[in-house]
Amino acid sequence: MEQEKRTEIASLGEFGLISHLTGGAGKASDATTVLGIGDDAAIVDHGGYQTVVTTDMLLEGIHFDLMYTPLKHLGYKAVVVNLSDVYAMNARPRQITVSLGISSRFSVEALEEIYAGIYSACSFYGVDLVGGDTCSSRQGLVISITAIGTVEPDKVTRRSTAKVGDLICITGDLGAAYLGLQLLEREKQLFLDNPTIQPELNEHDYLLKRQLKPEARKDMIELFEKHGLVPTSMIDISDGLASDLLHICKQSGVGAYLEEGGVPIHPDAQMTAINFKLDPITCALSGGEDYELLFTVDPKDIEKVRFLPDIYIAGEIVPKEDGIMLHTKGGNRHAITAQGWTHF
Amino acid sequence: MEQEKRTEIASLGEFGLISHLTGGAGKASDATTVLGIGDDAAIVDHGGYQTVVTTDMLLEGIHFDLMYTPLKHLGYKAVVVNLSDVYAMNARPRQITVSLGISSRFSVEALEEIYAGIYSACSFYGVDLVGGDTCSSRQGLVISITAIGTVEPDKVTRRSTAKVGDLICITGDLGAAYLGLQLLEREKQLFLDNPTIQPELNEHDYLLKRQLKPEARKDMIELFEKHGLVPTSMIDISDGLASDLLHICKQSGVGAYLEEGGVPIHPDAQMTAINFKLDPITCALSGGEDYELLFTVDPKDIEKVRFLPDIYIAGEIVPKEDGIMLHTKGGNRHAITAQGWTHF
Repeated sequence: MEQEKRTEIASLGEFGLISHLTGGAGKASDATTVLGIGDDAAIVDHGGYQTVVTTDMLLEGIHFDLMYTPLKHLGYKAVVVNLSDVYAMNARPRQITVSLGISSRFSVEALEEIYAGIYSACSFYGVDLVGGDTCSSRQGLVISITAIGTVEPDKVTRRSTAKVGDLICITGDLGAAYLGLQLLEREKQLFLDNPTIQPELNEHDYLLKRQLKPEARKDMIELFEKHGLVPTSMIDISDGLASDLLHICKQSGVGAYLEEGGVPIHPDAQMTAINFKLDPITCALSGGEDYELLFTVDPKDIEKVRFLPDIYIAGEIVPKEDGIMLHTKGGNRHAITAQGWTHF
Repeated sequence: MEQEKRTEIASLGEFGLISHLTGGAGKASDATTVLGIGDDAAIVDHGGYQTVVTTDMLLEGIHFDLMYTPLKHLGYKAVVVNLSDVYAMNARPRQITVSLGISSRFSVEALEEIYAGIYSACSFYGVDLVGGDTCSSRQGLVISITAIGTVEPDKVTRRSTAKVGDLICITGDLGAAYLGLQLLEREKQLFLDNPTIQPELNEHDYLLKRQLKPEARKDMIELFEKHGLVPTSMIDISDGLASDLLHICKQSGVGAYLEEGGVPIHPDAQMTAINFKLDPITCALSGGEDYELLFTVDPKDIEKVRFLPDIYIAGEIVPKEDGIMLHTKGGNRHAITAQGWTHF
């Protein structure tokens, strides 16, 4: 077997490493990028627009496990989770900065893989990498990305502006990313117990893709623009539908009722949930990482929503006093609570 | 002795923790901040200006040692190093985002200390904290900050625009932050060898302050504006004068000669360098972390420079073929090389 090439990071030095990894970022593709990597700071010109800014940090052992996460996918996903936040403001992402903390156990080739994923996402979503920082880490891999985008002031979709009577909409199926993670964790455990075992993941392409290489809903924002639809509020579903719906309700001072039958779940997710002895709707409510959009629309815009593909109307905004309730297929009502977050 | 209050991070949860720590950030102080923390992304309106963006990551064990770094100072410094990059573009910082990776060994009170330092810097420099991310880290503390600022397009000072004949200027003394670090490392080693020993740091206030609580040269940018001076190029001295001068020369395609006698060194730094058997000029050239500004000016602007306090004229930009040389006090010439970076 041919040995893989391994270049020690130390052989390039910090500045050598940065220019090696970001050499392809010299030419700006976005018209608002005035100056990219290579100075103290990047320069962007958003004249006439408002600028949105968002940042997310991914830490090894918390947000990803390198045992089953290909580095290229990791770079891609790290960009996508940030762009998803920009789209959730109904804005168009324009630039990103990337900071990496890396240990000497990574080779230059490994970092190239991460950057290949970052550039692939930049290319697909049409954003420029305009800055960053690369430093050594004593322990795990750290990726911190900031995305900036532009929006016309009257098109911004905040979390705090849902109104009673608005329809609750979801752009795609939920729970699949969470179930993909369960599959990967199960195979990891089997492998650790018996390293000769081969992973059984072939039939789970959809769930694995949702976990390892999610996409942000750029297409939705473009369709909103095309059809003249401005949601009354919007958030991306990163923590889970329950947690993110609670954010909208809390910040808007409203309640919600959600129809279980209106929450889209992919057949593969249904089946896998049952195999894991999990309730599919619980996976959809609490799973997180699907990066679909949750938004509310004024009922007068119902005809615009009907024209859009992939939109699921899943409930309605109600007065705060009515609570935030799930109406099950069996006719029961449950209060929805946040369960997404267990890192600490 | 009264026991210090210790609140477990887990008792607040992620969203509780973020709103606890950033509760004071609700009201924007900068007129360009439209929407701060609490949505998918912040919104800023820089209409008419160009926007500069920069990011820096600080990792425990690499960039700071919690054994001798007060958490409040750490938060302050983490902001300052980013603002320094914005000033180095001749721009005015407006907003920052802060991402923290923290382990459960930190209490909420410890994080409050970090945020107290962050807010103190925001207040002093007049910037808004508009977003961020807080997540758990399995290992050390991680701080990643992105700063954005505004600049009139014709006032931007890049690294790539120094011209032959320009004067090389420095805004303050160099090497002190590096020597402060040497003092702290020495005391740490003495303490580890014998924990009953008391640190002898009283007489070194200046050097310790330069290391633990540096300031960015906001005042200089304001003086440039007031006196109508636009440097032909500028960089902040974070890696060391040698390394940062090389950046300007390389990107501008020029050489430089630097007079040893023109490089400002504080008397405390001189003395301490000699005590450590180090050459003071080497500390000034390679030490880093002083966060002074290195800039070049057209000779026709010499009268404007003369009016400014704290400016040291230390040399001249020369043709590339003449190299990048230090003229020592003894009359010798040495080629200047970068030695700042040894993390890997």
